[in-house]
Amino acid sequence: MATGSDKFPKIHPVSGFQLGTVSAGIKTAGRKDLVLMEIAPGSSVAGVFTQNRFCAAPVQIAKRHLQAQTPRYLLGNTGNANAGTGSQGEADALDCCQAVAAATGVACQQVLPFSTGVIGEPLPVDRLLSAIPSAVNAFSEQGWAAAAEGILTTDTRPKGASRRYAIGDGQITLSGIAKGSGMIKPNMATMLGFVATDAAVDGELLHRALRLANEKSFNRITVDGDTSTNDAVMLIATGTSGVEIDELTFEPFVAELTDLFVELAQGIIRDGEGANKFVEVLVEGAKDTAEALQVAYTIAESPLVKTALAASDPNWGRILAALGRAGIENLDIDRVKISLNSVLIVEAGGRAAGYTEQQGQRAMQPEDIQIRVQLNRGAVSDKIWTTDLSYDYVRINAEYRT
Amino acid sequence: MATGSDKFPKIHPVSGFQLGTVSAGIKTAGRKDLVLMEIAPGSSVAGVFTQNRFCAAPVQIAKRHLQAQTPRYLLGNTGNANAGTGSQGEADALDCCQAVAAATGVACQQVLPFSTGVIGEPLPVDRLLSAIPSAVNAFSEQGWAAAAEGILTTDTRPKGASRRYAIGDGQITLSGIAKGSGMIKPNMATMLGFVATDAAVDGELLHRALRLANEKSFNRITVDGDTSTNDAVMLIATGTSGVEIDELTFEPFVAELTDLFVELAQGIIRDGEGANKFVEVLVEGAKDTAEALQVAYTIAESPLVKTALAASDPNWGRILAALGRAGIENLDIDRVKISLNSVLIVEAGGRAAGYTEQQGQRAMQPEDIQIRVQLNRGAVSDKIWTTDLSYDYVRINAEYRT
Repeated sequence: MATGSDKFPKIHPVSGFQLGTVSAGIKTAGRKDLVLMEIAPGSSVAGVFTQNRFCAAPVQIAKRHLQAQTPRYLLGNTGNANAGTGSQGEADALDCCQAVAAATGVACQQVLPFSTGVIGEPLPVDRLLSAIPSAVNAFSEQGWAAAAEGILTTDTRPKGASRRYAIGDGQITLSGIAKGSGMIKPNMATMLGFVATDAAVDGELLHRALRLANEKSFNRITVDGDTSTNDAVMLIATGTSGVEIDELTFEPFVAELTDLFVELAQGIIRDGEGANKFVEVLVEGAKDTAEALQVAYTIAESPLVKTALAASDPNWGRILAALGRAGIENLDIDRVKISLNSVLIVEAGGRAAGYTEQQGQRAMQPEDIQIRVQLNRGAVSDKIWTTDLSYDYVRINAEYRT
Repeated sequence: MATGSDKFPKIHPVSGFQLGTVSAGIKTAGRKDLVLMEIAPGSSVAGVFTQNRFCAAPVQIAKRHLQAQTPRYLLGNTGNANAGTGSQGEADALDCCQAVAAATGVACQQVLPFSTGVIGEPLPVDRLLSAIPSAVNAFSEQGWAAAAEGILTTDTRPKGASRRYAIGDGQITLSGIAKGSGMIKPNMATMLGFVATDAAVDGELLHRALRLANEKSFNRITVDGDTSTNDAVMLIATGTSGVEIDELTFEPFVAELTDLFVELAQGIIRDGEGANKFVEVLVEGAKDTAEALQVAYTIAESPLVKTALAASDPNWGRILAALGRAGIENLDIDRVKISLNSVLIVEAGGRAAGYTEQQGQRAMQPEDIQIRVQLNRGAVSDKIWTTDLSYDYVRINAEYRT
């Protein structure tokens, strides 16, 4: 199951950024499962990674390499996460980087590895090594759609977004792909996002833009509250447009970037495991962002709220119970209002005057649901996106390894 | 679904404590849904209640009445939680207390109300009021089993526990019932537990005993992480055994009480919504209790760990990923060990040497599963109990109101 349109959008190529996607036979024969990306010399690259303490070997190496040098190649594989694999996992990931370095004539540290798939199984290094030369041969600036396929795991559809916008006399392209469907509650980033632009952005500024855009997009989604061991989002600026981003043009750049990130992040939620609903949880009138997010995530991750959503049941008592246990100090429940798709259901500590069960039933029918919570105790709003909890979520995750 | 034996144990009567259970037709005609309990004059009574901010009207009134006077009557109903019902809910609960007071000749403040069932619907007060006289007529010290039935909601079986132990020349009886199946992550108490003893215990000491026993039992279980709006555990000491609990005999009393509470709390988990597995999460070598519980709950509430348990799949990568996101500062993953039913599966940041998938498969077959996490960074251990996440959990909660 998934929500929204499953049409893959047109992705504008980004000059100076090429992608090559092939089948390495990592888990299933014939499936696209290895993506190699080439970044032109002189580009800036920024990355954010999972905060999970058991972060995977490739994440550890990618972080280390990114600190040492500006990357020239990103190597992604699906079918195996190379996580929970100890020191052997690190050696395996390094072997893959070394193979890309040898095939392209760069330093091993200029290659960043990314893996997704089952946790705890040894990486089939030989299969990756044999596939790397054909990935190099497949390099193309048109390679986005194939790459979007090549990084999927339990995803049911590829996720991409692209836009162009004018800046002064010039024009900037922003394009990206992402994957993710379960084990989704990114903490700094989601597994995996690759976004490139032909703007010229220096490294420090690019990092800042990435953090800002990420915070309002990938860091605002949850499928199941489970932060993956392998999350990473990479942002590449090739500079080939000749348009330079400086402090003056930074704000609109971040706005466009955030917009694209939100599209990718929402794409992950629309394709969340077993998803029948796309749910926005909007919290208004909070004292601060932490409080708004605490309420939003407690509601979004409540199994009881999620199963009610799966049944299109306006069982608002569960939203209220989740809010009540969210740990908000001195919450005055009499000031709280809760709405489902614009229908006011809770006020003054109970059912809103005039609310009817029929209204609630109607409000819950659409695929897209907004749960709006007005705390009325401050001036801060924030929102996150999530899915329902369906039979299919259980089926997918009970059968994942069979 | 449920795990373990479904035989209801023999409950020893507690002299001075009577229970009357009848059908009030609150939700379903003919079903036992109203329980009235009578406490002999001179008894001590202690209670702990949900920390949910949206705590139900009966909880608010029970807390207020308990502070004002020693209760003589406890009135419980199922089928309607009288939560999220605003000021009308309070008035309705008070009307019920008043009716019990009038029928028995005590003050309204000596009656404590308890409700469980659907949140957000008005309490059908008239039905409760008409049933109260027949509940009074039904009073009996043998009434435990009927009462255990009369407080159930989505539970598939009644839960009770009872024991007698010698103390000096005397003997003390401890008996109790509990209910709960979903919306279970008690924070101070679970919905609902009623335990009585014929020991003589003064109010302050009884409260202390209740808090201690509760902390290691009802406050150590989770089905879905959702803390209910209506949780309450009441402990009654009638003193009719003539045995007095003092500072000297307090410790063994608390030990027996905790033992009985654990039996009731585990009964709730064994009957957790859709439960196929009874899971103990044991965390050893933590720096403090908070850290041990943080790890234990993160694992116990991870939807991915829970669905793997439902499938009897030793997908230990998910346990490791949950541990990694549990927020433990400076966790050294190389020192962590994880075992499933005594089979060591993770050490040194990866799969344990000698571990085979076959061993893991075998370890996951029993109905009772222990997940043991050794952090090796401190001297504190703690454990909690939980269930798996099955199709049936989703079915029960998607269809709850239909």
